[in-house]
Amino acid sequence: MMMTVGVLIWVVGVASGLRERPEWRALEAHAEEMKATHLRELVEDEERCARLFLEGPCGLVVDYARQKVTTRTMELLFGLAKSCEVMAKRDRMMRGERINTSEDRAVLHAALRSSRDSRVEAVVEKILKFAEGVRSGDLRTAAGDAFAAVLVVGIGGSQLGPEFVVRALEDARLETRFLGNVDAFEVATRGLDPRRTLVVVSSKSFTTTETMRNAERAKAWLGGGDVSDRVVGCSASREKVEAFGASRLFEFWDWVGGRFSATASPGLLPLALAAGADAARKFLDGAAAVDAHFAEAPLERNVPVVLALLGVWNKNFLDLCCRAVVPYAARLARFPAHVQQLEMESNGKSVGANDHRQLDVPAGEIVFGEPGTDAQHSFFQFLHAASPVPVDFVGFLRGTDAAAHDDLSANLFAQPDALAIGTPEDGTLPPYKRFAGDRPSLTILFPRLEPRSARCPFRDNNFPTNHPRLGRSSRFTNIARRSRGAWLWGINSWDQMGVELGKTLAATIRAHIQAAKSSSTTDGVVAQPAPAMMNPSTRRLLDIYARANRDDRGGSSLSSS
Amino acid sequence: MMMTVGVLIWVVGVASGLRERPEWRALEAHAEEMKATHLRELVEDEERCARLFLEGPCGLVVDYARQKVTTRTMELLFGLAKSCEVMAKRDRMMRGERINTSEDRAVLHAALRSSRDSRVEAVVEKILKFAEGVRSGDLRTAAGDAFAAVLVVGIGGSQLGPEFVVRALEDARLETRFLGNVDAFEVATRGLDPRRTLVVVSSKSFTTTETMRNAERAKAWLGGGDVSDRVVGCSASREKVEAFGASRLFEFWDWVGGRFSATASPGLLPLALAAGADAARKFLDGAAAVDAHFAEAPLERNVPVVLALLGVWNKNFLDLCCRAVVPYAARLARFPAHVQQLEMESNGKSVGANDHRQLDVPAGEIVFGEPGTDAQHSFFQFLHAASPVPVDFVGFLRGTDAAAHDDLSANLFAQPDALAIGTPEDGTLPPYKRFAGDRPSLTILFPRLEPRSARCPFRDNNFPTNHPRLGRSSRFTNIARRSRGAWLWGINSWDQMGVELGKTLAATIRAHIQAAKSSSTTDGVVAQPAPAMMNPSTRRLLDIYARANRDDRGGSSLSSS
Repeated sequence: MMMTVGVLIWVVGVASGLRERPEWRALEAHAEEMKATHLRELVEDEERCARLFLEGPCGLVVDYARQKVTTRTMELLFGLAKSCEVMAKRDRMMRGERINTSEDRAVLHAALRSSRDSRVEAVVEKILKFAEGVRSGDLRTAAGDAFAAVLVVGIGGSQLGPEFVVRALEDARLETRFLGNVDAFEVATRGLDPRRTLVVVSSKSFTTTETMRNAERAKAWLGGGDVSDRVVGCSASREKVEAFGASRLFEFWDWVGGRFSATASPGLLPLALAAGADAARKFLDGAAAVDAHFAEAPLERNVPVVLALLGVWNKNFLDLCCRAVVPYAARLARFPAHVQQLEMESNGKSVGANDHRQLDVPAGEIVFGEPGTDAQHSFFQFLHAASPVPVDFVGFLRGTDAAAHDDLSANLFAQPDALAIGTPEDGTLPPYKRFAGDRPSLTILFPRLEPRSARCPFRDNNFPTNHPRLGRSSRFTNIARRSRGAWLWGINSWDQMGVELGKTLAATIRAHIQAAKSSSTTDGVVAQPAPAMMNPSTRRLLDIYARANRDDRGGSSLSSS
Repeated sequence: MMMTVGVLIWVVGVASGLRERPEWRALEAHAEEMKATHLRELVEDEERCARLFLEGPCGLVVDYARQKVTTRTMELLFGLAKSCEVMAKRDRMMRGERINTSEDRAVLHAALRSSRDSRVEAVVEKILKFAEGVRSGDLRTAAGDAFAAVLVVGIGGSQLGPEFVVRALEDARLETRFLGNVDAFEVATRGLDPRRTLVVVSSKSFTTTETMRNAERAKAWLGGGDVSDRVVGCSASREKVEAFGASRLFEFWDWVGGRFSATASPGLLPLALAAGADAARKFLDGAAAVDAHFAEAPLERNVPVVLALLGVWNKNFLDLCCRAVVPYAARLARFPAHVQQLEMESNGKSVGANDHRQLDVPAGEIVFGEPGTDAQHSFFQFLHAASPVPVDFVGFLRGTDAAAHDDLSANLFAQPDALAIGTPEDGTLPPYKRFAGDRPSLTILFPRLEPRSARCPFRDNNFPTNHPRLGRSSRFTNIARRSRGAWLWGINSWDQMGVELGKTLAATIRAHIQAAKSSSTTDGVVAQPAPAMMNPSTRRLLDIYARANRDDRGGSSLSSS
């Protein structure tokens, strides 16, 4: 999806000329009209509401009648997508062409959900068999203990997708902890028994700084020496995993981007351990179903494409730069953070994927969210009263506790109308209780979130989609969003060069801190010649830091209290 | 602070005329100049960097040299604050005047940190004594068991602040779980022993739907009947707490807003249980230190005021609508969600606090964040390459593991420069590796995050500020932000009318769902006359929901797969 939307421009090679296209100009003119039309009127149009409604695979439905669009808007958007050859770009991705131009790589995470590749299928089989062995107690530690807990060491895409999926679907068989940040070790391992904990280290390169530091600490915590009976790795480097001392390698393919790895071994292994092989397999199946929908459904009924186009509409024509993602399910608490990474890392770009020229329209959305109804008790005040923020409401038709689920669902169905319609304009309310409405949202409903029966498939174009229902949720939301970025905006959604600059700088500063600490002068950092790049502000901060860390009294050398 | 900034306008009664003020116009003209000045130049100015640096109480420092401001900008902003009588508004709040105009209430959470009020102090003493009794095992269940876990039932402000504080400072004595959403019960109680769990129910009114539903489930889970030995309440209603069957009431004062209750019983009791009475007392002390700074420091050195003014500058003059909050500490993972509530619920307003007229400038910021370095592996790509988002970096000078802390700190110091300066413009890098820089941020450093020694105070103007260091972090960030909204924008930061509309609608829809379910017709909801407010889209969604919940086969009635 994402890919689809972006592809057109990229194929045509006019990423830097999007604004000049006639389709774009027609949308700009149309947007003025739509800005002046209140959603209160739009949602009363029966035929319009019926048409702005989609059915996806596995019972998924999308109601976008509360977006500020008419059927005319959608025609114009579909025209733009066609002019950008979005579907051709989708096909290029699906064929495995090297669409990640800056890194000269194919983007093949969809292959993870297909059983056609025997190498992929062999790894899936290995993961599921291993996980069932751990869960059943057939696979034990060298000391003969059954495993009680899993510690997943990984950061970024090796944590956000897997954590979301595990929290959504886990049962109570094993305790699963995630360890990302370098200062999180104590909290992540608190209460775990190292003799009965399986450590999963996930890093494609097996060189990620935070991950390898935490992995070394985990080995020491397991007891030091040969602890390979309790350590496995997910990586593209067999050599490094073996050198690290892990007993097993679960291949993490080079052609899968980190943030798209929830259906690769970094996501699949923790899921299979936490929810069982059947759940993990159905998760893959769900992802495959969504892949198939994305690959085959016509533009106008293709859920990821439609969601992507709505994103472009909101961002580029209605000037709404943010999107809130609010799942009405406590188990999806980490879904917004996962979508945030997928969207902001994929589409936070400013040059064209092919011509590398500056875009002439801004790309990418800022994504944030918390589960509902929690979010209603927090930032919804802003959504109702301050600047408009499009909201993606995500819900499930059925829950385990019917009464609680009805309560949750009543809120899920009420908020979109409260945002769209606002309060009556009859002057009966005091001004501070009046709300203008006209705030767009859309609602995505799945039949059921089924952690145990494992019927939810999901994935997305970089991400597993496939617990039969959950899967779809994630899949569609993400794909849709990335599509916009990738193919309509003409950007490369598959690299993330922006994070590299910070890494390089951090290495310089780390070296400087070490040098300052080992310096024999009394002034520490101050005595070190500051690297050329450092400015007065940075020098001051590093000086404060060095002084604090030379002060063995444990307090601050700045504090006057 | 927040209050301060907003107060000026409110006192003068010109909330709807902010844009016409000469101070505002001067800032608008100045902003054009600043937009054309790259941060790369600004951070090289030694004198400017020295002046854009603040010291707060207890060793806190704020470096705002990477904001797009000069000393001239700050003069203009201070002039605006004076013209808006921000400090007079602060004084009105501190004196306990009824500045929450729509609800006709005083805003007195600062009194929670003062020992001058004997009623307040009596409740604090009661909380600390009770918590120490539970922790030591002196206080036991009716069956004679020591407590092993605490289940905190509460939502919104009764969860976000308390959860942030507990996760930041807890030790391993007791296991603390938070239960907010109605579908979170199973996950929140998993692995806990009901015979040894203390249930804390927090709701000012003791009528919050989600909280009371979960509280009832918790009572049943404890065993049903008289379980008062394991149930306590934080509330303003003694009658309701007694009727519910709790053994103890910890007063939750009517003059403390929900989102400001981290130093009231809903925050203080869980903190004292999780980290001990000493930690909780020092947390209060820290909050009081920040209150004193806010009440006494001159405008130009008042940390919350300066942060608030920077927020107004970014939002209203540089047109940057979002702010990312990135704490470099895994234990502060829930800090961004807490700040998100404080900012967006307080300042997500569109009418003046006094004259109730439409504001002529937008108020409030969209806040989101995740801990660093995790966030660097996620949405930082967007921050570097896409639209500018001001970032608040929050860090600590010292950590427990020196090597890991140096790694973390190297990243903390590197990111602001990477954002501000970008890559060299010498043409050596390919376009997709070039970054323009000029992205503003600020850095707040605290001496140490000390969960055990309990030296971190924090609070904020609606929020405890007072674990001696942690406290300050939260306190300053929050106060500053709310100040902007409240006093400069002229809005009422203390109400949250926007959430009420959604609640009313939810009640209507809930009643409709119940009626449809009990309907004897075969078509369920369809046969019910839809309430007047419902539009075709809502009717369709409710129909789908009702059909799914009449279908006992457990699947979706929509699914064709």
